Amino acid sequence: MDDDRPASEALRYADAGVDIAAAERALDEAKDAIRATFTDRVLADVGSFGGLFRADGLGEEPVLVATADGVGTKVRIASAVGRFDTVGRDLVHHCIDDALVQGARPLFFLDYVGVGRLVPEHVAEVIRGLAAACRDHGVVLLGGETAEMPGVYPDDEFDLVGTLVGVVERAHVLDGSRVRPGDVLLGLASSGLHTNGYSLARRIVSERLGLDWNDPFPNDPAGRSVAEVLLEPHRCYLEPLEPLLREPWLHALAHVTGGGVPGNLPRALGGHGARVSRSAVPELPVFRELVRAGAVERDEAWRAFNMGVGMIAVVAPEAADDAVARLRRTGEDPFVMGEVVAGDPVVSWLD
Amino acid sequence: MDDDRPASEALRYADAGVDIAAAERALDEAKDAIRATFTDRVLADVGSFGGLFRADGLGEEPVLVATADGVGTKVRIASAVGRFDTVGRDLVHHCIDDALVQGARPLFFLDYVGVGRLVPEHVAEVIRGLAAACRDHGVVLLGGETAEMPGVYPDDEFDLVGTLVGVVERAHVLDGSRVRPGDVLLGLASSGLHTNGYSLARRIVSERLGLDWNDPFPNDPAGRSVAEVLLEPHRCYLEPLEPLLREPWLHALAHVTGGGVPGNLPRALGGHGARVSRSAVPELPVFRELVRAGAVERDEAWRAFNMGVGMIAVVAPEAADDAVARLRRTGEDPFVMGEVVAGDPVVSWLD
Repeated sequence: MDDDRPASEALRYADAGVDIAAAERALDEAKDAIRATFTDRVLADVGSFGGLFRADGLGEEPVLVATADGVGTKVRIASAVGRFDTVGRDLVHHCIDDALVQGARPLFFLDYVGVGRLVPEHVAEVIRGLAAACRDHGVVLLGGETAEMPGVYPDDEFDLVGTLVGVVERAHVLDGSRVRPGDVLLGLASSGLHTNGYSLARRIVSERLGLDWNDPFPNDPAGRSVAEVLLEPHRCYLEPLEPLLREPWLHALAHVTGGGVPGNLPRALGGHGARVSRSAVPELPVFRELVRAGAVERDEAWRAFNMGVGMIAVVAPEAADDAVARLRRTGEDPFVMGEVVAGDPVVSWLD
Repeated sequence: MDDDRPASEALRYADAGVDIAAAERALDEAKDAIRATFTDRVLADVGSFGGLFRADGLGEEPVLVATADGVGTKVRIASAVGRFDTVGRDLVHHCIDDALVQGARPLFFLDYVGVGRLVPEHVAEVIRGLAAACRDHGVVLLGGETAEMPGVYPDDEFDLVGTLVGVVERAHVLDGSRVRPGDVLLGLASSGLHTNGYSLARRIVSERLGLDWNDPFPNDPAGRSVAEVLLEPHRCYLEPLEPLLREPWLHALAHVTGGGVPGNLPRALGGHGARVSRSAVPELPVFRELVRAGAVERDEAWRAFNMGVGMIAVVAPEAADDAVARLRRTGEDPFVMGEVVAGDPVVSWLD
């Protein structure tokens, strides 16, 4: 921006920090990746006012499940290290998991990227990343918006927001009504922080550990950098769990996001409570190091982080062995982490 | 945040600038307004992992139309003057209009609010504003997310993102295929900037006019302040246009957003071009003042701003009189602003 110009000179839109051509360039670079997610249900090309999705034949009594989310301040690590290909996957996986816990398979996704200063290559990388994740899981990337917002965001910061719409047959909606005391809680491992607790994690890394993003993460078994450990993508649980969605013994699913196990598990239990053994959840090294370095109290840590469990399946006790066996065949290593109990919809810790 | 504490003290999530309770308080304050948008198609209460919407009986060959958008840097004016009840309406109206131009009536909406520092009262006001707009137009506010993102946003800034899903019968999709050379372009007035051109407008107001938000806007017929003129909500064209959506002579609709008339009209014309008379569009005082003070060149102004036309209906010439009469009965004052012409999908100016 040239601020030396005389005050009488004509102002152009670009002078105000908004480069329309840059947004178009970003979309152009991502178009092929977006089109690769299209199926015969899509009726309009990239760039329409709205995406068109044929909704006939979605089921006898189809129920749409819609969820909106972001990836939290994980985006700050992405911008700090200039790595833009993973956060889109985080967002898509997060939204798929949110729809999945109500019994839904995903149909389509829309994204929004807000930036302080639009660098077309970076935005295109974000969109290609989320398009690839959509394609991997059979989701149409139906639309989106990129907005250059000088002042709302600092120059090098951005936010990433997504909305996913899925569908479930009404009789198969998971709404907690099937949950009974005595049901078994089967945990599925997370891959790291997923998309929660990043403001705390970043503070621990910078203030307590005094580490830069490219330094090795302490005691990481794979020898990864701080950025690599913290940018590890949110897991998608669609493929292991979809085959179980119509089983009558699958009573509920809980996606462990902001608020951790105690903040999310009770939302799935139809008014019941849960007793959970924290030691039954396999410890991920990233949480051990963060909790130690931050001297984070145990209860606080379990609210800020997923602590190693990204998804919890609530199953009838007589089906627990079968559920474990079927999940193992998909490559999961589920762990029994507690049970549903009568009483208030809260989590009590066994240890 | 207390930064004098010894480095060995336990870190809490709130120390990192994220107050989970504040987000819950904001949602609590807006819950009644959200529930007031619910219909018997909604199957879950506020706070579920995903919103549930019954999709049976939406039509013979229903097509879902989905659109994601923000309101641009209009949010900066809202935060600068502490007025949070209008931007939600902007967003809902913008999204309804985007779905409308493909022939769709709106079904449900999801919002995302990203903030630097979460003030529950402010966020609740934003959400209540968008819930009220949803209710006014028969749209369910099906879900949403509020994220406190220290560093991604400066403390007092926020972004507001929405996704709307509507439905249209496949035979009635407006996709430009019915447009013919000779079709008449009927303009519907905008109420002001709607949601585009704000970075340029803010710069003109502060640098060229040297005005504060609460100063009177120059030559405003209603004597409004700068903030009042610039925060005037985006118009919703659903009610005047919905009765015309199934008329065979309604060939297309164009929503005039970012890029102005030349950036949006050609997207609706199925490959044809348009000849437009700029003097046929009634001048809104806000644009006259901004263009004069910023010495904005005419072509540049018509790309940065809607210049007084928020929606353009493309109608068969023999039905133009009937269309005008029917629109007038809804309180609109439509104006003939040009015609469709053969040739490249661009706008040429008659004057």
